Amino acid sequence: MDTTDLTALRSRIDAIDARLIELLAERFRATDAVGRLKAGAGLAAVDAAREAQQARRYRALAAQHALSSTLVDQVFRLVIDEVVRNHRALADAARPDSAPT
Amino acid sequence: MDTTDLTALRSRIDAIDARLIELLAERFRATDAVGRLKAGAGLAAVDAAREAQQARRYRALAAQHALSSTLVDQVFRLVIDEVVRNHRALADAARPDSAPT
Repeated sequence: MDTTDLTALRSRIDAIDARLIELLAERFRATDAVGRLKAGAGLAAVDAAREAQQARRYRALAAQHALSSTLVDQVFRLVIDEVVRNHRALADAARPDSAPT
Repeated sequence: MDTTDLTALRSRIDAIDARLIELLAERFRATDAVGRLKAGAGLAAVDAAREAQQARRYRALAAQHALSSTLVDQVFRLVIDEVVRNHRALADAARPDSAPT
């Protein structure tokens, strides 16, 4: 085996992983901004219509790039579940205290 | 709520998602090349030392970008499990038939 090739490929994979993590961070900054907008307007953390539209788009993009659509679904399920948890926390923080009167 | 802001944020999220999927596809092309090198050399599909090194790096990058390291771990666990399945399939395809003599 050409270990130079293996080393070069692994460096490329590491660079891709660093970029994936940067993009995930950028995505959470954008979804946190969405969460603050929603919390300010009293909107629900989950938007089923938006999620369904995203799921269709992920399937189309997975097919276009010859990726497993199961894998793409699972990755975004993890990400979106975390987004919903963050949005709920933002909504809870925005809600006025409901102490008994 | 400013729906223009929400629309702009969602467009940005969609653009990030398209880029994430492109990068995942690029990553699988690189890992498939690694799998072919390994299969040709008869090397194991799983490399525990490499995986441990990657896990340390993911934790450092997650911390650097203020991302949940649990989420980052889970995302890469899904990706790496798929890579190992692909490497095993490449190794099986490369192995000569072991028909009884």
